[in-house]
Amino acid sequence: MIALLTDFGLDDPWVGVCKGVIAALAPGVPVVDLTHGVPPQDILAGALHLDAAWRYFPPGTTFMCVVDPGVGTARRPVVVRAGGHHFVGPDNGLFSLLPSTEIREITADWGLPERSRTFHARDLFSPVAARLATGARFADVGPVVADPVRLDLPTEAVLLVDRFGNLLTDLPGKDYGVVEVEGREIPVRRAYGDVARGDLVAVTGSVGTLEIACREGNAAKALGVGRGARVRWRSTG
Amino acid sequence: MIALLTDFGLDDPWVGVCKGVIAALAPGVPVVDLTHGVPPQDILAGALHLDAAWRYFPPGTTFMCVVDPGVGTARRPVVVRAGGHHFVGPDNGLFSLLPSTEIREITADWGLPERSRTFHARDLFSPVAARLATGARFADVGPVVADPVRLDLPTEAVLLVDRFGNLLTDLPGKDYGVVEVEGREIPVRRAYGDVARGDLVAVTGSVGTLEIACREGNAAKALGVGRGARVRWRSTG
Amino acid sequence: MIALLTDFGLDDPWVGVCKGVIAALAPGVPVVDLTHGVPPQDILAGALHLDAAWRYFPPGTTFMCVVDPGVGTARRPVVVRAGGHHFVGPDNGLFSLLPSTEIREITADWGLPERSRTFHARDLFSPVAARLATGARFADVGPVVADPVRLDLPTEAVLLVDRFGNLLTDLPGKDYGVVEVEGREIPVRRAYGDVARGDLVAVTGSVGTLEIACREGNAAKALGVGRGARVRWRSTG
Repeated sequence: MIALLTDFGLDDPWVGVCKGVIAALAPGVPVVDLTHGVPPQDILAGALHLDAAWRYFPPGTTFMCVVDPGVGTARRPVVVRAGGHHFVGPDNGLFSLLPSTEIREITADWGLPERSRTFHARDLFSPVAARLATGARFADVGPVVADPVRLDLPTEAVLLVDRFGNLLTDLPGKDYGVVEVEGREIPVRRAYGDVARGDLVAVTGSVGTLEIACREGNAAKALGVGRGARVRWRSTG
Repeated sequence: MIALLTDFGLDDPWVGVCKGVIAALAPGVPVVDLTHGVPPQDILAGALHLDAAWRYFPPGTTFMCVVDPGVGTARRPVVVRAGGHHFVGPDNGLFSLLPSTEIREITADWGLPERSRTFHARDLFSPVAARLATGARFADVGPVVADPVRLDLPTEAVLLVDRFGNLLTDLPGKDYGVVEVEGREIPVRRAYGDVARGDLVAVTGSVGTLEIACREGNAAKALGVGRGARVRWRSTG
Repeated sequence: MIALLTDFGLDDPWVGVCKGVIAALAPGVPVVDLTHGVPPQDILAGALHLDAAWRYFPPGTTFMCVVDPGVGTARRPVVVRAGGHHFVGPDNGLFSLLPSTEIREITADWGLPERSRTFHARDLFSPVAARLATGARFADVGPVVADPVRLDLPTEAVLLVDRFGNLLTDLPGKDYGVVEVEGREIPVRRAYGDVARGDLVAVTGSVGTLEIACREGNAAKALGVGRGARVRWRSTG
């Protein structure tokens, strides 16, 4: 199967166009949307979303991942082999969090006959994903990349805010103690339900790291903080 | 097939993660999004969206429905059998509007090996839906639930506002008369086209109840009202 | 396969309902979302999105396209044959940009037994798309339409603004020269990367026309302009 992660949103036709290209080149291969809601050109959010999800897909999934502010420049198009899957997209840090075993630059002539300078998801990455999903060999993609671009992950910080206003941090999960967010102390518990409705609580979130939530509410709004906010353990915690 | 209804939105990776889990456990089973745009933790909206849709799906569809503010608490995970389908999700009223024939608590060990306290859609409900869609027996889910949670539906009210600004009410549909919304009188007609552009009109909506619309406009904005607004028949109507 | 384009958004259950209808009538036929984010009742945007996408789909795709402010009035339901595909929807200009070879009004009794006056996507267009995708003959749809509704396209204007704030125009693409948008001069280059970060640039966009962008930024915000803004070549360009 092919899974898609982009920053295209769903209001424009761009995702639909990619699905058309894939359907034409890989008929019968199921296509699944991982998400298209990565904030525009936000490579770090794309990398984190991918990290939260790829482990749950069946072995041999081909992921097309496009958050690509450098489209049309010299940034390399690549395929990453990691965790039993293939990941197709730009070499700009988007694949930094994968346990990569090998990365190859796409030099094979697998794209559409005409290639625009603004929409490589359509003209190159979708066709390459379609070919890999229908039997093309990773070794034929192109030469190995020895120096892929890496992102620096923030530490002791809110990495993402999700739709529920939950603050996802990089701190490892725990069941007890106290964390401080922008000077405010928040108890760490096992589950949202361990505090009263409307109260703030930190729990081990679904990706294993500490997540700050507001029971049946919105922690981001309640705290007035967002991405990048500082988070740390209280020394007595 | 498996149909999904959640309040996860599409900007985070959570829906994609569930699709990965389902694809791994039920390869080849088509997965369809009913909607992921239920407002966060809004059980009533989820129940109404499900009510508008489930009848149109092919017999034997498995619905995974997750609007779950109580995740991690003692609320029961259940499977409902209704209308020739199965519905998997939390026992919190989300399934109140279904013509249920039988409800079972999920005690079978069908979830992922590790279960978080914040993401049962991934760890429990997706695997259970995948198993039911691939032949597991409803009778094996767990014990029958005799006292499922029920919602109280508002009456004589705007239940939902849709993307077009149409106000969906609980009043049974009619073709004539006059309704009053927050003191304003609105004619009931057969179709939007029976009034001039920009005029307000009430018609029988797609779920059989009265819907207040603005021809080629937005009734919610024109009236300045939203969910919960009072709606009633004029006595002379 | 069946591809869907509507202005329904994804927050309401309407798209899910159509997918249920299609799954019931055309089991096993893949359904793909082109987009459901056409602004409500914006026929021109729907026509442009369709124009950007349909060429990339495999031959024989059935498109269901619904932007239908006139639902319930006398506007004709039609099927258009164009480019090796079928397009099902209202005759209101939505199909104006297709290279149509033949248009037929839907008079065949292929809809659901009960037809609402507000939701023909569910009651008529989805069933017709399902039937065409499972072997029904175009010639059996109904009589040929000789006078389909046509849209007037704006000229020398911003036609659409996409999620990235790129301004899509009707000017044919070029690699050099200068365009003027609301009195501001913008250089035309080959790729976004030919200007510095944050600078404005016009390039040939993915549909072959001139697109005004801001490298790693948002041109619509930077210029403070939107759809309908005037765009023209500088005489010395």
